[in-house]
Amino acid sequence: MEKTKDIFKKCVDFTLADEVKALGVYPFFRPIDDSEGPVVSFEGRKFVMAGSNNYLGLTNDPSVKQASIDAINKYGTSCSGSRYMTGTVKLHIELEEQLADFFEKERCLLFSTGYQTGQGIIPTIVQRGEYIVADRDNHASLVAASIMAIGGGASQVRYRHNDMADLERVLQNIPESAGRLIVSDGVFSVSGEIVDLPELVKLAKKYNARIVIDDAHAVGVIGKGGRGTPSEFGLVDEVDLIMGTFSKTFGSLGGYVVGERSVINYIQHTAASLIFSASPTPASVAAVLATLKIIRNQPQLTERLIANTDYVRQGLLKAGFTLMPSRTAIVTVLIADQMKTLYFWKKLFDAGVYVNAFIRPGVMPGHEALRTSFMATHEKEHLDKVITEFSTIGRELGII
Amino acid sequence: MEKTKDIFKKCVDFTLADEVKALGVYPFFRPIDDSEGPVVSFEGRKFVMAGSNNYLGLTNDPSVKQASIDAINKYGTSCSGSRYMTGTVKLHIELEEQLADFFEKERCLLFSTGYQTGQGIIPTIVQRGEYIVADRDNHASLVAASIMAIGGGASQVRYRHNDMADLERVLQNIPESAGRLIVSDGVFSVSGEIVDLPELVKLAKKYNARIVIDDAHAVGVIGKGGRGTPSEFGLVDEVDLIMGTFSKTFGSLGGYVVGERSVINYIQHTAASLIFSASPTPASVAAVLATLKIIRNQPQLTERLIANTDYVRQGLLKAGFTLMPSRTAIVTVLIADQMKTLYFWKKLFDAGVYVNAFIRPGVMPGHEALRTSFMATHEKEHLDKVITEFSTIGRELGII
Repeated sequence: MEKTKDIFKKCVDFTLADEVKALGVYPFFRPIDDSEGPVVSFEGRKFVMAGSNNYLGLTNDPSVKQASIDAINKYGTSCSGSRYMTGTVKLHIELEEQLADFFEKERCLLFSTGYQTGQGIIPTIVQRGEYIVADRDNHASLVAASIMAIGGGASQVRYRHNDMADLERVLQNIPESAGRLIVSDGVFSVSGEIVDLPELVKLAKKYNARIVIDDAHAVGVIGKGGRGTPSEFGLVDEVDLIMGTFSKTFGSLGGYVVGERSVINYIQHTAASLIFSASPTPASVAAVLATLKIIRNQPQLTERLIANTDYVRQGLLKAGFTLMPSRTAIVTVLIADQMKTLYFWKKLFDAGVYVNAFIRPGVMPGHEALRTSFMATHEKEHLDKVITEFSTIGRELGII
Repeated sequence: MEKTKDIFKKCVDFTLADEVKALGVYPFFRPIDDSEGPVVSFEGRKFVMAGSNNYLGLTNDPSVKQASIDAINKYGTSCSGSRYMTGTVKLHIELEEQLADFFEKERCLLFSTGYQTGQGIIPTIVQRGEYIVADRDNHASLVAASIMAIGGGASQVRYRHNDMADLERVLQNIPESAGRLIVSDGVFSVSGEIVDLPELVKLAKKYNARIVIDDAHAVGVIGKGGRGTPSEFGLVDEVDLIMGTFSKTFGSLGGYVVGERSVINYIQHTAASLIFSASPTPASVAAVLATLKIIRNQPQLTERLIANTDYVRQGLLKAGFTLMPSRTAIVTVLIADQMKTLYFWKKLFDAGVYVNAFIRPGVMPGHEALRTSFMATHEKEHLDKVITEFSTIGRELGII
C-alpha cells in the first residue's frame, strides 16, 4: 500500500524565505510606520520612497482623505454585500458614470480589487473553443485570470513580449472560426515599457480579434490628461475594453473596466469575481471620485511625474546602469543576479532609499532587477538621493 | 474560408437582464441612498434590510467608524502596493497577530478581499498530481479558486453537499499516494446550513487529507464567542486552515487565513492573489481591529443575532413556508420558481422589505429562493414586519 503524500510537505520544505532572512537581506513585507508620500518611516527611520505606485501622490491629499472620511460617516465602513445584492450605494453608480465619461466609453463596471478585474473579464468572455491571445509579460493578475479561463475550458496562445510579428504568427495559428481576445498590459509593470498598440490594433482588425488593455500603470502617467495608453495613441475607439486599478494613480483600492454597453452588461450579470465578492468600500470609492477630480483639474501633476522620472532615468543612465526600456513612471535597473539584487536592495535600504527587489519566482533567472517608481510629489533632493545612493552602491558592488 | 466568430457575440445575445428589467422586477444592483444598519433608504424610501451580511451591525458603530477615520488620517487612503512590496503598514501586522490569537492558530495572513483568499490557498497548495476534494455547494469564490487550480494542473473531485458517505466514496477513489485537500464552507452561504465537521475531520484523518474551512458566514454567528465552525465543534486543532472574510461580521472588506506557521509562510511567499494585489486599505484594516475588539467584549451581540434569526425562522415556519435547514443567521425561503421568486421579491420591495433573490445562474432550476439574513441590531418591529409581509405576499402568490 502506497503512503499518501502530505499535501503540506511543500510548505515545510520551503526554506528560501527563511534563508534570505538569515542573511539579513530579506526585502519583503516590511511594515511602514507612517507615510508622507515620497518620504516614509520604516523601523523608526526616514526613507525616500522610490517604489510606490502612488504616482501622483494623492493618497495623502487632504481633499481625498476628507472625501473618504465623509463616506465613512455617511455609509459606514463596509457595504456588507456584493454589488449584485445589497452592496451597491450611490457612490458606486456615480463613480461608474464618471469613469465611463473620463475614458470616453459607454459604460464602466467597478471591481473590489484590480486583481479581480481581469478575472471578471477573461474567464467570462473567453469560453470553451475560444482563445486568449496573451503577451508573455502580462501582469500576474491577467495570468491568473487566464489560468482560470483555461480551467473552465478556454484555450490560450501566448506571444513573445510586445513582439507584433510573433503576435501575427500566433493569430494565424488559431482555428479560423474561433473567437479570440488579445490581452495586453498598456504599460508593462516590471519594465514600464508601453505596448505597441498601433500595430496590435492593426493585427486585431486583420484577424477579427477583440482587445483588452490593462492600463494599471498608465493612468495618470501617459495619454491625454493621463487617460492612459489608448489615449496616448489616439486609439480609444479601437480598444474594446480598457481595465485598470485604483491602487496606483487613483490612490485607493479596486479596479474597473470600461467598454460598450452590451459587453459591460454581460460581465455585470455573469462575472463571478463581481457577483460573489463584496463591493468596494464607500471610503475607497469616495477616494477615487476625489482623485479623479484632481486628475481632471491638475494635468501638471502628470507632467511633474514624467519630469521626475526622466530626471532619475537620465541620472542612472549617465552613471552607467542598464535600464529596461521605459518612458513611463517606472525605472527598472537590471542586476541579473539574485544575491547581488538582494544585497543591493539591503544597502539602499540601509542608506535610506526604498525600492522593490524583483527576484525569482517573480522574474526569470537573469532578469533580477531593482525596480523604482516615482511620484509627482518627489522633490529634487529625493531624486538626487536616489541617483547618488544607486551610483555609490553600484560601484561598490561592481555593477557599474 | 470560415468566418471568425466575434467573441463578443455572447454579450450582444445576452438579453435576460433587460427582459427582467422590462417586467419591472429586476432585483439587482439597486443603489442604497444611505444606511442605518437594519434600516436603509432606496430611491428615497425606507426599507427593513433583511439581506445584509452585516451580522452584528458593526459597520455603523461609532468606534469602528472612528478607527477607520483615524487610519486614513495617519496612513492616507491607500497603501499603493502589495503586502509583499511597499503595501504593508503596522496595522496589517497588528491585525494578523490579533486574528491568529483570536482563532487560536500560529499565524494569520490577510488578503485584499475574501474572494481572493481561496485563490491564495487552493491553487497554491494543490498542485499537479494533487487533489481538491470539494463540497458541491461551496461558495463561488472557492469554485473559482478550484477552477484556477485545475487550470494550473491540479485535479478535483466533488462530493454531494454535506454528504459524508459521499465524501468517503470520493476519497477512496483518489490515487492512494496523491496529496489531497478537503475544501468546505463552514456555514453554507445559500442555506445557512453548518458543515458536518466532526465526520469530515474523522474522514480527513482516515484518508490523510488536510482541511480548509471557509468560515465567512460563521464568524460572529456560531462557536465560542463567535469564533466560527471549528470552535462550535471543539475542533480548532483538527482543521488545518480556517479562512474567512471581513465583509460580513467584521464590517469591512478583505479576507484572512489562519493556520500553522510553515503553511502560512509558504502561502505568503508564493500566492499570486497576495503578492500581486494591492494590500487592504488602512481604513479597512482599522475597521476590523475595532470590530474584533467589540466581538471579544460583547458576546451578547451574537446571542441577540441568533435570537433575532430564530424569531423570524419560527414565524415563517408557522406561516407555512418551506425553509432550507439552518440554525445560523441565514433564513432561506424556497420558492422553486424563477418568475414567482422575482415577483415575490418585487412585492417585498414595494412593501419596504429588502431581501436577496436567488435565481439562475446563481442556483439550479427548482432551487430559486428568497434568502434573508439578520443582524444583532434588528428590533422586534423590523422582524415582525418581515414575517408579516412574507406571509401576506406568500398567500397572495399561492406559495403558502
